[in-house]
Amino acid sequence: MARTTNRRPVTKIDLDAPGGPSRRPDDLAAEEPLEIRLRRKPLAVTMRTPGQDIDLAMGFLLSEGIIQIPSDVVTAQLCAGTDAPNTYNVVDVVLGDHVPPPVTDPSRGFYTTSSCGVCGKAGIDAVRTRSRFDVSADEVSVAARTLSELPGKLRAAQRTFDRTGGLHAAGLFDANGELAVLREDVGRHNAVDKVIGWALREDRLPLSGHVLLVSGRASFELTQKAWMAGIPVLAAVSAPSTLAAELADEAGMTLVGFLRGRSMNVYAGSHRVTA
Amino acid sequence: MARTTNRRPVTKIDLDAPGGPSRRPDDLAAEEPLEIRLRRKPLAVTMRTPGQDIDLAMGFLLSEGIIQIPSDVVTAQLCAGTDAPNTYNVVDVVLGDHVPPPVTDPSRGFYTTSSCGVCGKAGIDAVRTRSRFDVSADEVSVAARTLSELPGKLRAAQRTFDRTGGLHAAGLFDANGELAVLREDVGRHNAVDKVIGWALREDRLPLSGHVLLVSGRASFELTQKAWMAGIPVLAAVSAPSTLAAELADEAGMTLVGFLRGRSMNVYAGSHRVTA
Repeated sequence: MARTTNRRPVTKIDLDAPGGPSRRPDDLAAEEPLEIRLRRKPLAVTMRTPGQDIDLAMGFLLSEGIIQIPSDVVTAQLCAGTDAPNTYNVVDVVLGDHVPPPVTDPSRGFYTTSSCGVCGKAGIDAVRTRSRFDVSADEVSVAARTLSELPGKLRAAQRTFDRTGGLHAAGLFDANGELAVLREDVGRHNAVDKVIGWALREDRLPLSGHVLLVSGRASFELTQKAWMAGIPVLAAVSAPSTLAAELADEAGMTLVGFLRGRSMNVYAGSHRVTA
Repeated sequence: MARTTNRRPVTKIDLDAPGGPSRRPDDLAAEEPLEIRLRRKPLAVTMRTPGQDIDLAMGFLLSEGIIQIPSDVVTAQLCAGTDAPNTYNVVDVVLGDHVPPPVTDPSRGFYTTSSCGVCGKAGIDAVRTRSRFDVSADEVSVAARTLSELPGKLRAAQRTFDRTGGLHAAGLFDANGELAVLREDVGRHNAVDKVIGWALREDRLPLSGHVLLVSGRASFELTQKAWMAGIPVLAAVSAPSTLAAELADEAGMTLVGFLRGRSMNVYAGSHRVTA
């Protein structure tokens, strides 16, 4: 059975504590590979925290532009009838016949690398222009005060983090700061895919008027995923990268970084952030 | 020209500051795609911070088990003579004729996902057994006090972080806490690859008796990379995952997490950490 955390013995050392090291059980964030298959053909593997795996697969396929609407997917299930050793680590998806299969280029290798949403694709330009949603037209505005309260709400809703300290979180909020959904994962991209997959399954796309908050940094890939889901405002507790800011500019998205305490930096689309 | 940081205008909002939002330039961590090619054939793309790209490519190839010693590589250069739009974003590597080319499986897709070192491969078991170094036999011991001083040394040596707050760091130390090399990147796996690639180029492998410190969390993939480079001790400022701890157990590595202030948790190989 897949678990979000696993208990292991750990040696705790505190140089200031009397009595020397102690040994006791500790909860660690679970990390296991998930293979996403299309009609039993392997498409991708991601290292993720088990849980909401169907949503993760849906969000991944949406982020990659392979599916767009719920009816693009006929079935998606944790594998029965496969030769995988851990069937809960394989999701098999059957796309509708109307959905063009993803274009794979055999000259591209089997490799995948860290935090990379464009690996093996023709290039960054191809990624940039793929969202079917025009988030630049989204007229939502969010009060700076509302934004400043989101990290606290995210943390309050994060249960696993308190036990392991090892999970990234992604939270979807409305413009009034109401939490719609929270997902956690050892990989921040997985946490966002789980949010987006949930929204797709609930037929809520595009996520107009929403704010996506991520617990870490804002990378190019996270910005791209937000755009693919039609989210107009991406906020991060930590720093954005140059490419994240440039992509947000291009998409007409609002990008907020260093959202901590009562301050924040707005890197793109500052017109949506009101006093 | 590739840059480690880029300056952009940012709107700074502080709800407690008088006078409202201010607009001023800010340094962001640069993020750009790097394509690694083998004899002009694309192998992988990673989103990285420009700089030490040859080391990054070398470390990646070593981590993946494609190369083992410096002489496995005939040439490695930022691309001249390619059709890439930004030639500083492509590294072309020519392997020696004696080096078996990586096995690519066309049935595996072109996709790559976040923080994943095993994507598209036969599975985790294949990865686990690949290092040619037996780190379990490494008899180095490190004082807990020495370990506790490493994060401070890493931060002191991190220049870019102070400007952008957006870079992961990986530092290689000896058992006395002397810094051998520091590398930074928006992707923590890239930072580690840059360290390992540097060590390969300097013909220092295996990195017996060394400690690798990473600024974030310890994932399966980072543990695997450390093992591939023969590093006996991996320390992380934040939490490890279950799979990182399990792999460290299997390799006979020491895994330290939550290395903060004067305390730490030892998840595997605690015999190497002395009072």
